[in-house]
Amino acid sequence: MKITALAGGVGGAKLANGLIGLLSPEDFCVIVNTGDDFIYSGLYICPDIDTMIYTLAGINNPVDGWGLKNETWNVLYELERLGHPTWFNLGDRDIATHLERTRLHSSGYTLTDVTKKLSSYQGVKHNILPMTDSPVQTIISTEELGEISFQEYFVKYRFQPTTKKIYFKGVEAAVLPEEARSRLISSDLVIICPSNPFVSIDPILSVSGVREILSKKTIIAVSPLIGGKTIKGPAAKLMNELGTVPSSLNIAKYYGNLLTGFILDHTDHEEADAISQCGIIPLVTDILMPDSETQIKLASKVLKFGQELLKDK
Amino acid sequence: MKITALAGGVGGAKLANGLIGLLSPEDFCVIVNTGDDFIYSGLYICPDIDTMIYTLAGINNPVDGWGLKNETWNVLYELERLGHPTWFNLGDRDIATHLERTRLHSSGYTLTDVTKKLSSYQGVKHNILPMTDSPVQTIISTEELGEISFQEYFVKYRFQPTTKKIYFKGVEAAVLPEEARSRLISSDLVIICPSNPFVSIDPILSVSGVREILSKKTIIAVSPLIGGKTIKGPAAKLMNELGTVPSSLNIAKYYGNLLTGFILDHTDHEEADAISQCGIIPLVTDILMPDSETQIKLASKVLKFGQELLKDK
Repeated sequence: MKITALAGGVGGAKLANGLIGLLSPEDFCVIVNTGDDFIYSGLYICPDIDTMIYTLAGINNPVDGWGLKNETWNVLYELERLGHPTWFNLGDRDIATHLERTRLHSSGYTLTDVTKKLSSYQGVKHNILPMTDSPVQTIISTEELGEISFQEYFVKYRFQPTTKKIYFKGVEAAVLPEEARSRLISSDLVIICPSNPFVSIDPILSVSGVREILSKKTIIAVSPLIGGKTIKGPAAKLMNELGTVPSSLNIAKYYGNLLTGFILDHTDHEEADAISQCGIIPLVTDILMPDSETQIKLASKVLKFGQELLKDK
Repeated sequence: MKITALAGGVGGAKLANGLIGLLSPEDFCVIVNTGDDFIYSGLYICPDIDTMIYTLAGINNPVDGWGLKNETWNVLYELERLGHPTWFNLGDRDIATHLERTRLHSSGYTLTDVTKKLSSYQGVKHNILPMTDSPVQTIISTEELGEISFQEYFVKYRFQPTTKKIYFKGVEAAVLPEEARSRLISSDLVIICPSNPFVSIDPILSVSGVREILSKKTIIAVSPLIGGKTIKGPAAKLMNELGTVPSSLNIAKYYGNLLTGFILDHTDHEEADAISQCGIIPLVTDILMPDSETQIKLASKVLKFGQELLKDK
């Protein structure tokens, strides 16, 4: 069974980390959101790709979710002293990742190739594929601050501004890179990770051709909400601001007819019937993944569910 | 007495450091070579300006000449592991300087303004002024490797390739920034520091209008050679390759009628007469500056010499 996952940051990386424990690099890859990417004081930074690489390499900071474990902060201390903004946490070893990405990209490598090299240096064998090689920027249109980039919204302002609208600047010109495209086309099953639908999955779905390929696939999404709340990040807050009650049911409805199956937490079991009535097959289980054991456990359930859905097809 | 110094890296910074001990920020500034500047993996790096800032702030590494004392190397260790080239030594706190410069410059500040901010953060009160705000790149045309940038020649290849020609890419479009220009015009005395004439001082002299302003000034140069050898760097090797015997006399001749006075070391006292015969007034003294005491001592001799030359004018 060939499988492709679509993912954003921390939640997506957790499930992907479970899946790589069960699937070979030939059978599994993950396509990652690049709408959060930005150039920061010359450094080409891809927050979601970095979280994915670090998590799959087992070198991520398990407390914060982002960044590296046992990180040092010598550059950041000096940046603070020099008056450089410090809202974006630049760890010393993390900076090395950004510098190497910047170097490779400016010498002509595509983001796909750069990501492959960085993954390989960290010992990651499974393919981490950016959703596109061209620049796409998730813009949050806020009531208080006007239009700001996702990193400003998420990190600098800790997702406190009120969101009016979200759009993906440059996505009209973005294409799915060849490798991501062929892996997605040849997939039997697509897994939408428990990432934020609005700012992590929507950018991927907005890349030209992606929805068309997905329309022919068996797709399972895992809810990013438990009891109407997010584990991390602004999904629930965004839903409120965009006029929807934050719930697993409304996440399933948001993805709509893209989905064959939807996995939600026991906490939300009462929503399963309503999800069924939308023509989406629900699976109720534990979706919280605090450690690698629970990541593998959920991954295994997702795969079993996928196999059943494919059999019934 | 208003004084402007022209300088490159380590040798120039040493004399400038002596001069700031004797002169107020109103009376003294230094115009620094920017031909060595380069973009390295996204970082905007100005080696000579950094050496000048760090030296005048008293935070330079006195052993290597470049970089900061008590520096740490966490980013570089990781860069090495990731396959990023490590021929250019990026210290952690040094990286903070480059990041802040890159940020300020990309947000619209001129290099002059950026340098002022960085100097001020490090507690430097005297003006360090880049020779120009636009990009100029010193190119070394070598026998073995063709055309390479100065940092590649100097750091990566440790000035071992044979030089055929040196030129300053972009210098035709370069102008002296307004502040450097007005400081230079109002100077009573100009000091050419013991920097490499070919790769540190020539770029400054090549900026449009500089030679014209200098033609009306009393100028003293300090020899960068002792006994036909350099303290540091490729000046003597370059002279051999460009077809001149490396000597203080030939340095004086190279600057030619730009100079009023020339300071050379006791070791080279026999060259003083020949320098006189070129119409340049020689001063023989100790020009080695291993510590701040000798830097102030030489600076004081330069100033006294300058006063005499101005009196005799």
